[in-house]
Amino acid sequence: MNLVEKYLSIRKYSEELCQPLQAEDYVVQPVVDVSPPKWHLGHTTWFFETFLLKAFSPGYQVYDDNYNFVFNSYYETIGNRVIRTDRGNLSRPSVNDIYKYRSYVDEAMVKFLSDEVGNDVYELIVLGFNHEQQHQELLLTDIKFILGNNPLFPVYHEQKTEVLSPSQNEQRFLTIEEGVYDIGFNGEGFCFDNELNRHKVYLNNFSISSSLVSNEDYIAFIEDGGYKNFNLWHAEGWDWVNTSHIEAPMYWHKINGNWHNYTLQGLKVVDPNQPLTHISYYEAYAFASWKGMRLPTEFEWEVSAKHFSWGERWEWTESAYLPYPGFSKAPGAIGEYNGKFMVNQKVLRGASIATPEQHSRITYRNFFHPNLRWQYTGIRLAK
Amino acid sequence: MNLVEKYLSIRKYSEELCQPLQAEDYVVQPVVDVSPPKWHLGHTTWFFETFLLKAFSPGYQVYDDNYNFVFNSYYETIGNRVIRTDRGNLSRPSVNDIYKYRSYVDEAMVKFLSDEVGNDVYELIVLGFNHEQQHQELLLTDIKFILGNNPLFPVYHEQKTEVLSPSQNEQRFLTIEEGVYDIGFNGEGFCFDNELNRHKVYLNNFSISSSLVSNEDYIAFIEDGGYKNFNLWHAEGWDWVNTSHIEAPMYWHKINGNWHNYTLQGLKVVDPNQPLTHISYYEAYAFASWKGMRLPTEFEWEVSAKHFSWGERWEWTESAYLPYPGFSKAPGAIGEYNGKFMVNQKVLRGASIATPEQHSRITYRNFFHPNLRWQYTGIRLAK
Amino acid sequence: MNLVEKYLSIRKYSEELCQPLQAEDYVVQPVVDVSPPKWHLGHTTWFFETFLLKAFSPGYQVYDDNYNFVFNSYYETIGNRVIRTDRGNLSRPSVNDIYKYRSYVDEAMVKFLSDEVGNDVYELIVLGFNHEQQHQELLLTDIKFILGNNPLFPVYHEQKTEVLSPSQNEQRFLTIEEGVYDIGFNGEGFCFDNELNRHKVYLNNFSISSSLVSNEDYIAFIEDGGYKNFNLWHAEGWDWVNTSHIEAPMYWHKINGNWHNYTLQGLKVVDPNQPLTHISYYEAYAFASWKGMRLPTEFEWEVSAKHFSWGERWEWTESAYLPYPGFSKAPGAIGEYNGKFMVNQKVLRGASIATPEQHSRITYRNFFHPNLRWQYTGIRLAK
Amino acid sequence: MNLVEKYLSIRKYSEELCQPLQAEDYVVQPVVDVSPPKWHLGHTTWFFETFLLKAFSPGYQVYDDNYNFVFNSYYETIGNRVIRTDRGNLSRPSVNDIYKYRSYVDEAMVKFLSDEVGNDVYELIVLGFNHEQQHQELLLTDIKFILGNNPLFPVYHEQKTEVLSPSQNEQRFLTIEEGVYDIGFNGEGFCFDNELNRHKVYLNNFSISSSLVSNEDYIAFIEDGGYKNFNLWHAEGWDWVNTSHIEAPMYWHKINGNWHNYTLQGLKVVDPNQPLTHISYYEAYAFASWKGMRLPTEFEWEVSAKHFSWGERWEWTESAYLPYPGFSKAPGAIGEYNGKFMVNQKVLRGASIATPEQHSRITYRNFFHPNLRWQYTGIRLAK
Repeated sequence: MNLVEKYLSIRKYSEELCQPLQAEDYVVQPVVDVSPPKWHLGHTTWFFETFLLKAFSPGYQVYDDNYNFVFNSYYETIGNRVIRTDRGNLSRPSVNDIYKYRSYVDEAMVKFLSDEVGNDVYELIVLGFNHEQQHQELLLTDIKFILGNNPLFPVYHEQKTEVLSPSQNEQRFLTIEEGVYDIGFNGEGFCFDNELNRHKVYLNNFSISSSLVSNEDYIAFIEDGGYKNFNLWHAEGWDWVNTSHIEAPMYWHKINGNWHNYTLQGLKVVDPNQPLTHISYYEAYAFASWKGMRLPTEFEWEVSAKHFSWGERWEWTESAYLPYPGFSKAPGAIGEYNGKFMVNQKVLRGASIATPEQHSRITYRNFFHPNLRWQYTGIRLAK
Repeated sequence: MNLVEKYLSIRKYSEELCQPLQAEDYVVQPVVDVSPPKWHLGHTTWFFETFLLKAFSPGYQVYDDNYNFVFNSYYETIGNRVIRTDRGNLSRPSVNDIYKYRSYVDEAMVKFLSDEVGNDVYELIVLGFNHEQQHQELLLTDIKFILGNNPLFPVYHEQKTEVLSPSQNEQRFLTIEEGVYDIGFNGEGFCFDNELNRHKVYLNNFSISSSLVSNEDYIAFIEDGGYKNFNLWHAEGWDWVNTSHIEAPMYWHKINGNWHNYTLQGLKVVDPNQPLTHISYYEAYAFASWKGMRLPTEFEWEVSAKHFSWGERWEWTESAYLPYPGFSKAPGAIGEYNGKFMVNQKVLRGASIATPEQHSRITYRNFFHPNLRWQYTGIRLAK
Repeated sequence: MNLVEKYLSIRKYSEELCQPLQAEDYVVQPVVDVSPPKWHLGHTTWFFETFLLKAFSPGYQVYDDNYNFVFNSYYETIGNRVIRTDRGNLSRPSVNDIYKYRSYVDEAMVKFLSDEVGNDVYELIVLGFNHEQQHQELLLTDIKFILGNNPLFPVYHEQKTEVLSPSQNEQRFLTIEEGVYDIGFNGEGFCFDNELNRHKVYLNNFSISSSLVSNEDYIAFIEDGGYKNFNLWHAEGWDWVNTSHIEAPMYWHKINGNWHNYTLQGLKVVDPNQPLTHISYYEAYAFASWKGMRLPTEFEWEVSAKHFSWGERWEWTESAYLPYPGFSKAPGAIGEYNGKFMVNQKVLRGASIATPEQHSRITYRNFFHPNLRWQYTGIRLAK
Repeated sequence: MNLVEKYLSIRKYSEELCQPLQAEDYVVQPVVDVSPPKWHLGHTTWFFETFLLKAFSPGYQVYDDNYNFVFNSYYETIGNRVIRTDRGNLSRPSVNDIYKYRSYVDEAMVKFLSDEVGNDVYELIVLGFNHEQQHQELLLTDIKFILGNNPLFPVYHEQKTEVLSPSQNEQRFLTIEEGVYDIGFNGEGFCFDNELNRHKVYLNNFSISSSLVSNEDYIAFIEDGGYKNFNLWHAEGWDWVNTSHIEAPMYWHKINGNWHNYTLQGLKVVDPNQPLTHISYYEAYAFASWKGMRLPTEFEWEVSAKHFSWGERWEWTESAYLPYPGFSKAPGAIGEYNGKFMVNQKVLRGASIATPEQHSRITYRNFFHPNLRWQYTGIRLAK
């Protein structure tokens, strides 16, 4: 695919994800971490407009000056913005307005991409592609949150399953020898700045599971009183369980004695063989403690991932999200992309069924606060 | 008009108020006191369905069992409900779903109203009419809030003005003699339970203004440092001013040195001659103190209102919202209508440009917490 | 008693109230409404120093310039101050320092009071006396809160009972005829500005109980599910019950199936015959609703109080705390005494066992927010 | 020193630290992270009573059953406890009561320690010693907070300086070669479980400063607008700066244009040559970014610390507080000591002038949330 085709294909996929929605579904923001779908559609467009068209396409006419205020996410460099908690209070621009904005920018981008671009600009374009793919992941999980917290439990799509394989493989533990390993990206294509630089890490002997924890495994934890036993939890996790009255993964409801969970196909009985999802790091840690095991570090994961299949669930690791040796931020607004979040978050590795194809890789580092659950998070045990 | 005509006319007016909206405008709830327009449309429908059709129309089929949970406002008697702060998180039922719900209930109601009804049922029907009219008032002020807090300041309707008369009459002070006066409803038609019973009140001599405070008057207060002078405020009002950073009425913005205000016709320069609106009780009190005057009590207002014109602005009074002598709640859910709010609120008298025709009267008592400003509130001075 | 004797007698009583305390008891502030005893001792001293010695005693040397910041309560006119929630964070000035401060100011006051004073100054002196007496009431209830919320339940004083009479009189209902009555102070001695002006009020026929509600009465309310029945409560009261997990009056603990309450004599079994105390207005209202009665208004209370005994419990009324006709604030800091609290509070009438002798009177108006319970509040029913 | 002498010497030092206090200073808790000095004195005593005397000294009579509730800090295993935020609300047990409690337990401990003890018990005793030493550090920093946030700025002790050396050495950068290094405790004496196990870590080439950042260096950062430049901060740090209105290190006040800081010797002009202290991790990170450098990791620090002098300031590292490979919690309450805090905290290395002699070592790991500043924290730069 050339750049124009690639651009159009990525842009189209965002809109396809929204295709099952009604206009009202694009608007709401039930919690601060979830953004309205129309905001995602506008923000990814604003990214191309601001960092490419305004910056490098001479004569480009900004679509609407007010949109910078509405669709800036967190770039302090780019000026004031609607604060994150207020995104769900905005009925305008309407969904139609935003689709018009997308068309306008797409047209300009297609023209822009048809010409030769320099290396710097090329890197920004590819960043824009990856940026929109990251938002596609959020788009799907945010849509799930919006529908799954509605008392009517509307179906997103009858055919959209949340698993890749019908059931989990049998669990085996792979053993890795201690020694010095190389960590970090060193391929040819795109990577984020937080995957650089490639560097050496010393690992001790460890074993890691070939498969993810299943719903069945987790139900055993619940039934054994896992949520009632402070000894399994971090102090902050225990606080969170009690303050937020947590008794099960997100989207789980006990109806007439049976666990159900909301899925993109609607409310269903929990399938015991499917991989567990929608648990926080705190729960992942408590479950591993209960098993007498632990979560892998992100380095253990990266070294062993070629030996098992991954990509259905984002996997919590024990690692805190920190810069690699020699990490440095890009200058300007693009430098705000990753580095400024490197405190108080945990690394997730892998990918999930919400991740667009070819977006992840073995060195990819995702990160969230330890209490968050609305991504397709899962658990892989180590010891 | 017979009951069916009256019913249809009131129902139609709610929908007319929403006619200028886009689907997205029906959904959002920027602050807890404002409800999404689609919620108002559903809730008023639910009121007729619950208290009339389900209760008195044999064989009526409930439209959707889940709607009771979604559209119950505060009736503890009627079961669980979506908590008020979460109304803006619900994308479903969609706007179309709600219009279908309205049609379904309207059809059943027309049939129901075509038959003879008993006196008790008649009273409930009229309560349902007045209930929907109250929500029409909120519908307009909630719409104004949703649009007026959007950074794009969308116009609601080019022709919808917020004043009845082009400018305020000259101010005169009417003097009322001290003595015993009768207060409370004693007419023939409908009134709310909080207007009963008619009873005697002793009033001292007082004077009351024939006109409302104008924008010009209030700008003088601002320019004289009214918002900076603690001496003019209640302790709680002063706290509110400082904590909420209040410097002007709601919807006012100082742009290039000139006061503008958002109106249903969009953002406009403040007209100095129009009656002031969108101020809290705290501000009304502080303004009156600055003038060396005070607000009237609700009894003073009721006794003198026949001598001046009113109906453009809800007028803050000095009176707390309390039961009249002999007040008693109706049994059941209807008894939750008014009585349970009779603490920590202030009485407003009159009506506003958002009030449907023939909905208010001289004995009508509205009430809000002293910090609220999104209604068309105003000030009439007394001394 | 001459002025000097009166001054010394009032000042001494504050210190007597603190005599049973240990130094640590003077320091803490478990909730915002409760002030540390040492703060009361300092603040009442600061009042005399600021409004009399600094203002009218030429050559008076201020004891410590920093104390104005520490001991100012809410007088905006007098400059910045420690915010109320922070009073319990101050270990200095120490208790000894404050007793030295009291001695220093007392000496200067005795000298000052020995000379002739003008009428204005005389009124301020008497206000200072009444001000210190108001704080004596708070001193005792704040001490009770500090000790009664300590898990060791320390005894304040073995001999300090909380009742005046061994048990309640039999309940009778007094009937008062409808008509115009005079309300407000018109005696010779001191009164607060909020008791003025004397004015006419029209009252309907009503009956009022000769006695207070007893603990036994209230236990019946609890056992009948009073705290579980939303129908008895204001909406805000119901919220408060649920958010604060209220199930009994303040200081009540159910131990082995029996109600105990913390008293100044320590933790005791609840005496069924004693008058109920430590309930909020919300609870008073709910109890009255449960009885099918109501609370009296402050005017009903004032008109009928000569016919029953009062003074053991502050009695909640249905009246909101509002200005009397013609009320005006004094100029300057003294004007901040009462007027600025006239919103969102309820009037209490009578006095309690914490009230110093001769401090209350039939026209005295106390006021608190409707959720507060740490005063010796009680209930008298009306109908 | 034998065990009894060691015990008595440690216990005495806690009381010496409190010797300059007045009774009131023992009681208050201005913020949740600071505990009242009397609580520290009681809690360390409770630790010996609970984990040694009650567990291993047959016939020991518990001093007061209620003290378990009052002095348990966070051990869920040991039962309910006063929640941390409420510690400052307790006037009882009084300071005298707690000194009596200390004497009682000391007497029993001396007797207990005079006999032979098994290895397990010996380890618990040494843990008790180290536990009390940790609280000595907090005792001093908590006392500083209590006095330093009092508007009277009382002096703790005229002779207690906060620096070990009169001024900082000249700054040099030490360079360490890349390679595999051993990390973690492997000596003979006591260490905490979080320092185990000794394991290999791969380090890249790095340079680390021989000296700490001075006040002068930091004033340059302030004057260059460091607190106004979002680019230097983590997103959460920037939030913290703005929400908490941070403009300088804790205890710094600009008076007449000059920076002053509260010290144990009272309010003083900031000495430009002394090592900076009382800054959060967020500030440490922002300062390092401004310098174009970074903070060392805890491994870099441990490998290089033998080459520079340390011990005046706790030094923030870039490392998150995480378990070492093979870390496992001890069974029972002692297992709650460290492991359950291993999320969302940053590691500090070294020691400070508040650290008791011989309490720290090169492998010692301290940890705090990134916003906290009341310890004697400092900055050592790396690159």
